[in-house]
Amino acid sequence: MISTVKIVFFGTGGSWPSPERNLPSVGIQLDREVLLFDVGEGTQRQMMFTSISFMKISKIFITHFHGDHFLGLAGLIQTMVLNERKEKLEIYGPEDSIKQISNFLNLGYYSLSFPISIREIKSGETIDFGDYIVSAVKTIHPVTNLAYSIKEKDKKRISQELMEKYSLNSRDVDTIIKKGFIAKNDAKITIDDISDGTRVGRKIVYTGDTAPCQCIVDLAKNAKYLIHESTVDSSLEEKANEYGHSSSRQAAEIAKKADAENLLLTHISPRYRSSDLKILEEEAKKIFKNTILAKDLMEMLVPI
Amino acid sequence: MISTVKIVFFGTGGSWPSPERNLPSVGIQLDREVLLFDVGEGTQRQMMFTSISFMKISKIFITHFHGDHFLGLAGLIQTMVLNERKEKLEIYGPEDSIKQISNFLNLGYYSLSFPISIREIKSGETIDFGDYIVSAVKTIHPVTNLAYSIKEKDKKRISQELMEKYSLNSRDVDTIIKKGFIAKNDAKITIDDISDGTRVGRKIVYTGDTAPCQCIVDLAKNAKYLIHESTVDSSLEEKANEYGHSSSRQAAEIAKKADAENLLLTHISPRYRSSDLKILEEEAKKIFKNTILAKDLMEMLVPI
Repeated sequence: MISTVKIVFFGTGGSWPSPERNLPSVGIQLDREVLLFDVGEGTQRQMMFTSISFMKISKIFITHFHGDHFLGLAGLIQTMVLNERKEKLEIYGPEDSIKQISNFLNLGYYSLSFPISIREIKSGETIDFGDYIVSAVKTIHPVTNLAYSIKEKDKKRISQELMEKYSLNSRDVDTIIKKGFIAKNDAKITIDDISDGTRVGRKIVYTGDTAPCQCIVDLAKNAKYLIHESTVDSSLEEKANEYGHSSSRQAAEIAKKADAENLLLTHISPRYRSSDLKILEEEAKKIFKNTILAKDLMEMLVPI
Repeated sequence: MISTVKIVFFGTGGSWPSPERNLPSVGIQLDREVLLFDVGEGTQRQMMFTSISFMKISKIFITHFHGDHFLGLAGLIQTMVLNERKEKLEIYGPEDSIKQISNFLNLGYYSLSFPISIREIKSGETIDFGDYIVSAVKTIHPVTNLAYSIKEKDKKRISQELMEKYSLNSRDVDTIIKKGFIAKNDAKITIDDISDGTRVGRKIVYTGDTAPCQCIVDLAKNAKYLIHESTVDSSLEEKANEYGHSSSRQAAEIAKKADAENLLLTHISPRYRSSDLKILEEEAKKIFKNTILAKDLMEMLVPI
């Protein structure tokens, strides 16, 4: 069972970096494991300014192969080698991932010190990682871009009252979760005896790059956090849509349709300086109140 | 003729980045042209915090293909594309450069908008770029690393007194430099008539990675600035030398033997935090007084 879930933005820019924003990369910490979504150039150094260690990354998910979303991958991996990583690293991405990533990892002179697996995911595919499930869908972008949903599995909700009724402590509950039951006064007590409902697992969705897409409405249904790209403000959205990008206003509309709880805007065009960024957040908030414009190095806990 | 020469450090770390230091990259501005030496990951963004525009880079010199020295190249070039560069970019490096760089530039989906040439330089080779000459020598490192010297050509020194003697203004001098002479009172006045000696061209040497090497003493003879790698302090130099690196003390000895005017220490190991860096500078200064430990984003004019 997952306890702590944290979202950390290593880079919230898009296309090319600016002094304020590095290139796209978002970390999702699930207790001691870190999933990394996109690895823009400079991600390994950005991580050093946050609470997340690059050595804790277990899985990397690439949305697509535009340079701003993956050119930090080889540097990150070579730094893991220099720091003597031994644990396997799993990399997931769209079609062409095996070729693109293998070629990237073949650059320069070094030897891998740990195993790496690369798996190409198809749109609509779902992978069960035990405590959580990752699903991917193809978005609207000139090259194949996968949006990812990370969904903690639903669990029986344990009732304190029912625990007391059977005189169980938390260690007993652990036993029930592990074994399926506990013997108490000649009775077998199961999870159903001490549960009073369902604890709905937290869902987080990261779009990568996309024009407004029904696919995100479906993927992000009831998500706790929708991390949606928001390249421009509404005055530029027509052009942005042509290039497979969204405005903050459109991201908000998607969040609303999906009944998401919170919207985090990222992939902000380098054309915006801090002074003229307010418009992106304001335009979104008019449509979807729980909107935050992400900043580099922002960390947020995702409550149960 | 070159007027302004400026050295800018975009990254002064080595192996992997630290919060204080990005990966190796040094810019040398020669008037409106910028030569870039090494392109560690994140260089394009580091440039944005300095006076140097990435669009002004005319030539890139790679010392070797360890990831920390070149993995920022593709991102930089793709950003130049997005900013609609049209001018040719020349890239120089050691053996294997054509394969390494071509493979790197083939990653991801984009189309080049400007021509790129890649030339492999041999140790001992010299290239004449008109106003300046670049020479390269192979250093002591586990993979082929080229150190580069950038030498402004020597020029006749123009004497103000002799200009007055012939009643010449600065425009007349320009004519002499261009045409070889100027006609004045039925006489042909040449550069020799108004010169009282030689203006020695400025020389800057950048080592890339190396254990202490006589090759650098020779290359950096009378250099205005020797930019020498300085991975560790003297307590770790034996191990560093094994891996093809130098201590600050050893860099200072090289600078002294070369009769360089100034020593700039760079490629500092990420093991050092700002508090324990003094020892590197102090150990070098004991041997070579004009030593500066470089910092990221440091800019310095090179006087004539």
